[in-house]
Amino acid sequence: MKTEMRAAVDIGALLRLVREEMRCALSPEDGEPAEFYAAMQYAVGWADEQLRPADIGGGKLFRPRLCLLSCAAAGGDSSIAVPAAAATELLHSFTLVHDDIQDGSLQRHHRPAMWRLIGMPLALNAGDAIYATSHVVLASLARRGVEHALVLQALEQFDLCARRLCEGQHLDISYERRESVSYAEYQAMIERKTGALMGFACYLGALVGGADQSVLEQYRRFGEHIGAGYQIHDDLASVWHEASSTGKRPMEDIYSRKKSYPAVRAFESATGDAAARLREIYAGTSVCDEDALWVRELMTELGLREEGRARVRQCMGAALDALSASDASGPAEAQLREFAEALLS
Amino acid sequence: MKTEMRAAVDIGALLRLVREEMRCALSPEDGEPAEFYAAMQYAVGWADEQLRPADIGGGKLFRPRLCLLSCAAAGGDSSIAVPAAAATELLHSFTLVHDDIQDGSLQRHHRPAMWRLIGMPLALNAGDAIYATSHVVLASLARRGVEHALVLQALEQFDLCARRLCEGQHLDISYERRESVSYAEYQAMIERKTGALMGFACYLGALVGGADQSVLEQYRRFGEHIGAGYQIHDDLASVWHEASSTGKRPMEDIYSRKKSYPAVRAFESATGDAAARLREIYAGTSVCDEDALWVRELMTELGLREEGRARVRQCMGAALDALSASDASGPAEAQLREFAEALLS
Repeated sequence: MKTEMRAAVDIGALLRLVREEMRCALSPEDGEPAEFYAAMQYAVGWADEQLRPADIGGGKLFRPRLCLLSCAAAGGDSSIAVPAAAATELLHSFTLVHDDIQDGSLQRHHRPAMWRLIGMPLALNAGDAIYATSHVVLASLARRGVEHALVLQALEQFDLCARRLCEGQHLDISYERRESVSYAEYQAMIERKTGALMGFACYLGALVGGADQSVLEQYRRFGEHIGAGYQIHDDLASVWHEASSTGKRPMEDIYSRKKSYPAVRAFESATGDAAARLREIYAGTSVCDEDALWVRELMTELGLREEGRARVRQCMGAALDALSASDASGPAEAQLREFAEALLS
Repeated sequence: MKTEMRAAVDIGALLRLVREEMRCALSPEDGEPAEFYAAMQYAVGWADEQLRPADIGGGKLFRPRLCLLSCAAAGGDSSIAVPAAAATELLHSFTLVHDDIQDGSLQRHHRPAMWRLIGMPLALNAGDAIYATSHVVLASLARRGVEHALVLQALEQFDLCARRLCEGQHLDISYERRESVSYAEYQAMIERKTGALMGFACYLGALVGGADQSVLEQYRRFGEHIGAGYQIHDDLASVWHEASSTGKRPMEDIYSRKKSYPAVRAFESATGDAAARLREIYAGTSVCDEDALWVRELMTELGLREEGRARVRQCMGAALDALSASDASGPAEAQLREFAEALLS
């Protein structure tokens, strides 16, 4: 729904409401079995490692930010979009719980992955339940006065987006077993795994904010490009030792032989002996320090850091083009641009 | 929506439409990655072990049956409820894919569990995607002329039901680690794990069929009691060698030391040396043939087979009471009773 107020959005205050919405959704009145609900609270930073109530903080809430700002930029009252924003973060949290099981990752947000606390079977189940809950939260938009037809549209697009995330996850897992992956294949993966939900968060915010149907896809494209750019940015950070936003150790992606942006492009660009050694390292079962440093050096020599940064700038440009083609305006539109710039630089 | 036709439902024809609906939902136009969609098709019997298209059949479609018959019994046109019925079966299929991962089960419907074909990470992911898809199918009711408010209600209840299934799964997994489980605890588990979705299938069918809001909970209760009775019936079948509907080997639940109905009641009823030997057997890591036969003999002596059958009859009676308190009528109401009787005898 449209509002005439176009003041800047107090994003900090709104994000506190989003976290509160998540806490309430995962604390139903007859919340039994208690351990089941506590495990879900743990995933979103509302329980400690003993599964006792605590305010740990948790994720960076990028998707709720995009959702709330898109709502306001479309001329809506972003407080109405709080459940929508919470649903995007719950969906994201569910994927992280399952990712950690799939990858055998030990840590998440500097805390033990959930499966290490309660075991794989219960953690898998808690992930499912977080996903179930995300729908209940999104459906509650109808009680905030959002038109039924729009809530239905939001719910249908929500699960098409979720399935796209699963497509991306399928590709990501499949690529681990492959010797090499082309840049086009990498792109198909990150568009789904990172782009789809950031794009949907913007689409959803604009939809709740009353944007015309004709511009919703522009909002989505804005978020998708931001998401793809963010993924490449993060891949570069992992190799070149900048503080990675995910808190991973330096060169983690090289040590784990991940098909990240610089790896994919190094396989496409390296020739002769360098190509052979690269293939050998990535075909092995572990990477020693000397090899990791050699791989980074090769990537640097191939100019992949600059190339990657140029790709990130391209994504930023495409995102801003999409935003310009939408009906976003006012202070929140400026906040969206600022957020995008901060994320990608 | 109500219809004046109250002919008997051609359930076979409708179930073919349900299976076709599931196949279409899991075969989107740009169905890439192909292996991802093929894995989902495998789960619902539309792909073989090489993940090639095939019509294997798959589950017994109890939940779609309940949904379609409830729709007709409420006076609705059950062909409208086909996507609703398909959504309940997709939800069920998703839980089976994840169950098999959690339990390490090797077989499902006499075929390899999905994780054995494509590995745990991809199977977990395919399960998530089946769940995502179930929502898209359910939301499509709006395009069949069902009122938006009712579709929203269906979607919200769908995920509250899914979360209840997860509560049940949490209890089931937790009970494995416990020495003993009381009958009340067992009941709390089966109400959620088996009762909730059968209950929701009836609720959903009646809702689509245009039943008054005041009787929807009676339809749900009918299905919940049928579900609980079916679980006890199945638990009895596993011990007393009748052909188990799930195709398990005789006494499977004793060999796997499952906290099934007869085990739970044997722990509550046995005394003295028998109780001690029972505890010892269930605390071990495997059960030999001699011990399994002894356990079954004990259960027989304790009268648990008759007691269990009486419980099943109680469930049947409670289910029929709920059905009588609903507005179900006509030939489909008789078909619902017949189905319930066939399931529990």
